[in-house]
Amino acid sequence: MKVKQKLQELKNYIKNMELLDQATGIIYWDMRVGMPKKAVEQRSELIGYLSSEGYKLATSNKVKRFIDFFECYMDQLTVVEKAMINELKKKYEDVKKIPEDRYKEFVIACSKSEAAWEAAKEKGDFEIFRPHLEKIVDFQREFIEYKGYIDNKYDCLLDDYERGITVKRLDEVFGELRDAIVKLLNKVKGSKIKIEDSFLKEKFTKEDQEEFGKFILEEMGYDFQAGRIDESVHPFTINFGNRDVRITTHYYEYDFRSALFSSIHEGGHAIYEQDIPDELIGTGLATGVSMGIHESQSRFYENIIGRSKGFWKVFFPEAQKRFPQFRDISLEDFYKAINIVEPSLIRTEADELTYSLHIIIRYEIEKALINGIIEVKDLPRVWNEKYKEYLGVEPSNDSEGVLQDMHWSDGSFGYFPSYALGNLYGAQMLNKMLEDLPNIYEEIENGNLGVIHRWLNNNVHKYGSVYKPAELIKIITGQELTAKYFIEYLNKKYSDIYQLDY
Amino acid sequence: MKVKQKLQELKNYIKNMELLDQATGIIYWDMRVGMPKKAVEQRSELIGYLSSEGYKLATSNKVKRFIDFFECYMDQLTVVEKAMINELKKKYEDVKKIPEDRYKEFVIACSKSEAAWEAAKEKGDFEIFRPHLEKIVDFQREFIEYKGYIDNKYDCLLDDYERGITVKRLDEVFGELRDAIVKLLNKVKGSKIKIEDSFLKEKFTKEDQEEFGKFILEEMGYDFQAGRIDESVHPFTINFGNRDVRITTHYYEYDFRSALFSSIHEGGHAIYEQDIPDELIGTGLATGVSMGIHESQSRFYENIIGRSKGFWKVFFPEAQKRFPQFRDISLEDFYKAINIVEPSLIRTEADELTYSLHIIIRYEIEKALINGIIEVKDLPRVWNEKYKEYLGVEPSNDSEGVLQDMHWSDGSFGYFPSYALGNLYGAQMLNKMLEDLPNIYEEIENGNLGVIHRWLNNNVHKYGSVYKPAELIKIITGQELTAKYFIEYLNKKYSDIYQLDY
Repeated sequence: MKVKQKLQELKNYIKNMELLDQATGIIYWDMRVGMPKKAVEQRSELIGYLSSEGYKLATSNKVKRFIDFFECYMDQLTVVEKAMINELKKKYEDVKKIPEDRYKEFVIACSKSEAAWEAAKEKGDFEIFRPHLEKIVDFQREFIEYKGYIDNKYDCLLDDYERGITVKRLDEVFGELRDAIVKLLNKVKGSKIKIEDSFLKEKFTKEDQEEFGKFILEEMGYDFQAGRIDESVHPFTINFGNRDVRITTHYYEYDFRSALFSSIHEGGHAIYEQDIPDELIGTGLATGVSMGIHESQSRFYENIIGRSKGFWKVFFPEAQKRFPQFRDISLEDFYKAINIVEPSLIRTEADELTYSLHIIIRYEIEKALINGIIEVKDLPRVWNEKYKEYLGVEPSNDSEGVLQDMHWSDGSFGYFPSYALGNLYGAQMLNKMLEDLPNIYEEIENGNLGVIHRWLNNNVHKYGSVYKPAELIKIITGQELTAKYFIEYLNKKYSDIYQLDY
Repeated sequence: MKVKQKLQELKNYIKNMELLDQATGIIYWDMRVGMPKKAVEQRSELIGYLSSEGYKLATSNKVKRFIDFFECYMDQLTVVEKAMINELKKKYEDVKKIPEDRYKEFVIACSKSEAAWEAAKEKGDFEIFRPHLEKIVDFQREFIEYKGYIDNKYDCLLDDYERGITVKRLDEVFGELRDAIVKLLNKVKGSKIKIEDSFLKEKFTKEDQEEFGKFILEEMGYDFQAGRIDESVHPFTINFGNRDVRITTHYYEYDFRSALFSSIHEGGHAIYEQDIPDELIGTGLATGVSMGIHESQSRFYENIIGRSKGFWKVFFPEAQKRFPQFRDISLEDFYKAINIVEPSLIRTEADELTYSLHIIIRYEIEKALINGIIEVKDLPRVWNEKYKEYLGVEPSNDSEGVLQDMHWSDGSFGYFPSYALGNLYGAQMLNKMLEDLPNIYEEIENGNLGVIHRWLNNNVHKYGSVYKPAELIKIITGQELTAKYFIEYLNKKYSDIYQLDY
């Protein structure tokens, strides 16, 4: 009885934390989508106020007392309740380990660094950003000492985004993946097949793209009664509970692919959040479990579904109806064009095959940097060397090289691997899905995307954050994280497109 | 020294209250403008959470200690600091007087009542709304007993929206105004001038209306870098600080007037809030002082400026360029059409002359109801009788009668008089403005609306809430509230349009 009552008290407390997060989320969304220019400063102050309120709630003595209380009753709790307590404890301890004043200074350093990064990127001058990045890396190294680590300093940072993942494990799977992709890429480069994609670069009005994007999102199962799509500089997904899950995209009038595939990608994230069951509200577990699992959903929809031939077998005729540019293009040529392989400098524009190499480069650099094997000043050189080695391309300036992503400027070290992990998890899920539903490709060809949605909901979405990523992938597929299925998938797909021996 | 330090502490505290208000405001705006349907329930919960946090801040012991401390140092404070303390104290005491549980029950009753009102309005059936409204009136009567009153119970409610205004004063000015308008209206009805306005009811696309509205707002001095305009069911203005002041409107494709004049109206509110000086931030005074003064600004722009001949002398050619419907219409005919007098049933559609009668009817009804002279069940009958008497029209059902406004459903008794007060204040300001700037009509004719904006800023906006409405109108005009100037203004304007003896 006492435990039941205490559980209800705790849920009410966590509910308030969730509500505060929602408030911050709505305000953040508004900042990115609609806020008038002159409001920037006042808005930053508001965000600062709300996050300090959130900090207070997460680190209060009340939380400590909840944790201490439940320590003695863990055996009486359900799986969800245990996960709820563990999650609360983890957050409390993580936050408490770092001295409050140091964390505050870090936040200030980040906000200054973001502005410096923007300026540096605009001018293509790494030197503008360097002193700021050095500070941030110093902070990260300092925080790692507070947090403590067993094998590798970088494990601490990985853990922030993908609970339990380690350098040891990533070295194995990413090593295997890198070698396989480089090998396949070399074969593709030698292929006599040349793919034409100029018809994707004709003019497509924003309005037409928007309409088509909405059509595809509805077909995928994105619920517009519980979400909306808007335009922002960089595409993102954000949710305030499971009934208001919004996505954004960015339209380019001379590029058919960019907005469409980013919408499908964000739609994958959004469907995950829309599917979170109501029962998890107030447990702190009512959201996707990790960035890696989240990327598995978005990249599954974007690539495995959205860049498949079956998908376009059903939707290309619709595209042809709407876009006269495609009237004389065959399905086969369209399919090839959206899958053209072109080693390039910019991660966000990369094709499905080379994308993971962009991530692995960042992973290797972050790992070396955090462990003091290289320093910030070495970054441009190391970056360019790795791009040369893995992708065979070399940036002509830092804007299209080491300065291209904003992640480091706000201190998000350890985040990048999530994207490649998403690819691996996704292919593992596909393999299991094919066992459960052998005719899944037929279903796609018939436009029955609901079958996929249901499978993902039953196997992934409905669990929210109850199981940690490593547990979850084991529950779903019976196997641990592996690069095997993704490598098989890539080999098969690109051998077919580029007529390679396989 | 001690006082200075304490003042800073208090300002930091009030700043947090302001930030919480901003957060609530942004979330409310989003609810009205963009929120997906299914989010309603979760969003209401979020709003509830934030308002209870706001309640806690406003009634904390900390606030009590601040008030007690400054009680002894009032003579050392500046005008602004004194106003800050008085405002804080007033809010604290007002809120504290009502038992917390009763207030909570009132809020719940209101939210239920709003839904009942909507249903009742849709079906034109007052009986659906009656039991809810009876509860709300009972609550109001109960709260008045907690608050206490000197002359008239209704004074308590007036005070919530227009500090210091009383039934005694309103009976005088509204009585005078009512008699003058009824007299003028009868003359207008007898005029041989018949005004044609069918060209305002042709088709005007939403996009064209939107563009033209934005053009006019910019000319008025509304700063789009510190605001934005969107569409919502009912037009409103909302601000989050002075750098993000948003307005909404509603477009009707077969009505040129509705969206345009509501945009100008809301623009008047918005310019007031955009002009609030930064120095007032963190004092609790960084906003318009009362609903009456706020309406004086919005109605000044909407009617005194926006429905003047000078204004259209400069902007009608622009309208003609954009709208072929006006190609063969003369300025004179356009001016008459936007000022046509038609006694009607719906307040929000009323012309400038009859508008105040709609308000006076509501004032007389609220006053009688709160004092127990009539009861809720009498409302439809009394409503219809008064419309017959003052305006010569009679509702055929309650939807176009007593159910038309939502104010009573959420407990906003005492709010309506603000609209008519705004008309009176506005005409008093116009009179003073003409003394200061005798060539103001020429300026308007030349499109120099900046002159008006500057005068309003210097005389009204820059004070924020430092002076209470009665003080403020005295400071600006040297006179107390009076109906005299508005009556003069109406007589002059409509005698001219309808060729009456004057």
